[in-house]
Amino acid sequence: MTSLVAVDWGTSSLRAARIGSDGAVLDARSLPRGILAVPPGGFPAAFGEICGDWMREPQAVALICGMAGSRQGWVEAPYCPCPANFADIASRLTWIEPGRIAMVPGLMCEHEGVPDVMRGEETQVFGALDLLALEDALLVLPGTHSKWVRVSDGRIAAFSTFMTGECYGLLRQHSILARTMPQADGELDEAGFERGVAYALRSGTLLHTAFSARTLALFDRLPASALPSYLSGLVIGEELAAQQVAQGSDVVVIGSEALTRRYELALRQLGASAQRAGWEATWHGIRAIASMLQGN
Amino acid sequence: MTSLVAVDWGTSSLRAARIGSDGAVLDARSLPRGILAVPPGGFPAAFGEICGDWMREPQAVALICGMAGSRQGWVEAPYCPCPANFADIASRLTWIEPGRIAMVPGLMCEHEGVPDVMRGEETQVFGALDLLALEDALLVLPGTHSKWVRVSDGRIAAFSTFMTGECYGLLRQHSILARTMPQADGELDEAGFERGVAYALRSGTLLHTAFSARTLALFDRLPASALPSYLSGLVIGEELAAQQVAQGSDVVVIGSEALTRRYELALRQLGASAQRAGWEATWHGIRAIASMLQGN
Repeated sequence: MTSLVAVDWGTSSLRAARIGSDGAVLDARSLPRGILAVPPGGFPAAFGEICGDWMREPQAVALICGMAGSRQGWVEAPYCPCPANFADIASRLTWIEPGRIAMVPGLMCEHEGVPDVMRGEETQVFGALDLLALEDALLVLPGTHSKWVRVSDGRIAAFSTFMTGECYGLLRQHSILARTMPQADGELDEAGFERGVAYALRSGTLLHTAFSARTLALFDRLPASALPSYLSGLVIGEELAAQQVAQGSDVVVIGSEALTRRYELALRQLGASAQRAGWEATWHGIRAIASMLQGN
Repeated sequence: MTSLVAVDWGTSSLRAARIGSDGAVLDARSLPRGILAVPPGGFPAAFGEICGDWMREPQAVALICGMAGSRQGWVEAPYCPCPANFADIASRLTWIEPGRIAMVPGLMCEHEGVPDVMRGEETQVFGALDLLALEDALLVLPGTHSKWVRVSDGRIAAFSTFMTGECYGLLRQHSILARTMPQADGELDEAGFERGVAYALRSGTLLHTAFSARTLALFDRLPASALPSYLSGLVIGEELAAQQVAQGSDVVVIGSEALTRRYELALRQLGASAQRAGWEATWHGIRAIASMLQGN
């Protein structure tokens, strides 16, 4: 019986889990060894560090998803073009050690001559679809670079990246808006957040709406403590405004509890709701790919 | 006969000019003493440094526009509400020394409960309108915080701020996009710029379009040297998409030669053209306010 090691190797973190034959997570670890923190040629050592002991088991197989498969990673795993289903991904693994260590390919799609890419999120998406027993869905994976993913008939038809988290951080820390904001973000101010979402949904571009975080403070119309939440509402609202979210629809949100709550609040303004899926989706997705390899 | 000293005191620079009775600029100076570089209580000294000698002439009058009239400046000059014309501004000067040194008020407008503000640009706008003999116009003052200004019947009816230059800088220097870009911006790559404008005009939000600067580089569809120009096209295109620029219309662009060229290229994609006005608009505007004071 094969022993499965699932690895999620991103830009800033490295996580691994040992998965039982029944799909249960037997053990999980993480290290601050994202690909940006791995020196050239250092990938085998970092891999050994996080799961070398697990890999010594007979017939151990490791499947790695995430940025470790990018040009700056361990081995470049060519993108799989969209539309793509789970089987397409499973059939395009890039083997680092044949039968033992493989890289899950990222996905690539193209719209109006402009490519878009993901690495790691495809595994979470398929894992979540499997967990939720969905064949058609609109999903969002919020974060530094949010991904909005449209799935139909079990295939990822298309997706788009939004630099939402990164733009929030830049405006929050490095722009003129930082001057009127408190040092720390603090608790989410829901009223401030929702006001930001509402303004973004009706008022076009962040280039303009972001300036309101300054003027509302200038005229004492929003307390400084609410400004980070308001700005968060502006960026998430702008992201939402670019989607075709139907009223009454359910959007699958794969992310942290805190971020999922924000999307829930924002989606409510569009008359839509959020269906939650957590980070366990990654392990579930890797396990499903492994099952396909073994034809069981 | 009064001797007029015009001062444009912004966030990062301090400029002054001595204006002759015929409107000619007799002498002009600038210092790297924007309000952020002036210590508390240091405004009179900085003012003396740039134009103390000019102010010793009998009946010398100085009119100051810009951020020096803000809460963080020399003396806070209350905003004049829109719509406002030149006479409204001239009648609301805040005198620091009666009859001798005055601050030109900034403008404030409000849209859907959100205030917007400018300081200094109002003087440029009225100066440009006077120079170009216009009573109705759409104007843009590109920069760190671009201002789009709608004038009808000689009044500034409304305006909006766009954090275009600042967002460009943040994305250019501090985001993931910086990694694939050359150190220096280099010459404008017109084709790259125009491609960015076109994509922004048809594809919604910068949160999404900005990521294309990464993927186009990743797939070798745009040379690294063209990326800064492409990103500039994305932000300026996004700013333009938020305006109602009628086909065949003329937009007055008040700014540097280099930025004006970019707006000219971008406006062409909307079937509109740019009418240029340079920084001399500020001196002209201050002189026109001074004329109103003297009723001549």
